[in-house]
Amino acid sequence: MKTITLEQIEQLEKRYRTNLINCLSGVKGLNLIGTKNAEGQTNLALFNSVVHLGANPPLMGFIQRPASVERHTFENIQNTSFFTINSVSEDIHKQAHQTAARYDRSESEFEEVSLKSIYIDEFYAPFVQESPLKIGLECVDIIPIPYNNTHLIVGKIQLIQLDENFLQADGFLSLHDQKIVGGTGLDSYLSTQEIGRYSYAKPDLPLTDIQP
Amino acid sequence: MKTITLEQIEQLEKRYRTNLINCLSGVKGLNLIGTKNAEGQTNLALFNSVVHLGANPPLMGFIQRPASVERHTFENIQNTSFFTINSVSEDIHKQAHQTAARYDRSESEFEEVSLKSIYIDEFYAPFVQESPLKIGLECVDIIPIPYNNTHLIVGKIQLIQLDENFLQADGFLSLHDQKIVGGTGLDSYLSTQEIGRYSYAKPDLPLTDIQP
Repeated sequence: MKTITLEQIEQLEKRYRTNLINCLSGVKGLNLIGTKNAEGQTNLALFNSVVHLGANPPLMGFIQRPASVERHTFENIQNTSFFTINSVSEDIHKQAHQTAARYDRSESEFEEVSLKSIYIDEFYAPFVQESPLKIGLECVDIIPIPYNNTHLIVGKIQLIQLDENFLQADGFLSLHDQKIVGGTGLDSYLSTQEIGRYSYAKPDLPLTDIQP
Repeated sequence: MKTITLEQIEQLEKRYRTNLINCLSGVKGLNLIGTKNAEGQTNLALFNSVVHLGANPPLMGFIQRPASVERHTFENIQNTSFFTINSVSEDIHKQAHQTAARYDRSESEFEEVSLKSIYIDEFYAPFVQESPLKIGLECVDIIPIPYNNTHLIVGKIQLIQLDENFLQADGFLSLHDQKIVGGTGLDSYLSTQEIGRYSYAKPDLPLTDIQP
């Protein structure tokens, strides 16, 4: 095993450090965030920092990097409040990766990477038709993280569109059966397989498998 | 496809809603967070909300739920500032799940679930010996999320211990080769396989595979 100290991390070459530190948080969820500006121009961007914040009220968040370059997603959310979170399946993972290219403000990533935008129930922001799990959210808070000038965007779920074939009797939604991918670092895509599902842990009791 | 509105979510049975909403953020990283209180009592708890915050300075965060029940991890970080993040591999995923049981303050989850605590380079908080990727952090901020009374804990990486056999020339650390698991919802554990790694996306250029 190799030990790397903060001092050594600070001396690493920039790209090497970025790759390494981005790998440390573990397997990541990958989500396409869809927005639309006040002029109707759509935007789609891949994020690996979406996080569950709470079930009641139903809240999700994601980390927005510093606004040192144009951040169309962030601007659109600040101006319109609405955004969508769309899961990435194996079928569309290459297109999802391609959304990270720096397209101009006047270009829509939907068109550039050939993903189709759709609208559900008059919700303002566009969803990704090809995505197996679509969530519409209203931004309820933008929280600064002063230490590195990032922000936590807090969204309240307004609607969910999912494939009910993968929804189990207890509310569990199977993602691996839908080939929804995870990721490592900035550029590695992972398929997943379930190795176990266990009941709520209690002291002094052995774990029991949950049968689907 | 089934559409579920916020109004319908609010009317779901509590456990069903908790399961469903916890599945929506996608594949999650799973990490054991180790702490020690001022009296030397260790604590270990499983979190699925660890998130990358930035590479320079190297920052990671996690979401702490409301302090309505005893939260030993949170108390220990508030009192001592130090914590460790330890990846969960297939070998120890059942023990990791078992740490979620509500043990008394006087009990250490390390002993209760038979994981071994070790110390590296005088770092205050304990690491999990069996974990293939260990990170020591100092808490540099605790940011309230007022909308649901949770907190974002911000930690600055002080040291990393990793297996250099899985560290590639560009700083990428392969997690799936080390059988580090992901998760869905609150109780499902996933193994992963890489389906592709792609170069930095640029407009008008096709994606190219990164050969390891």
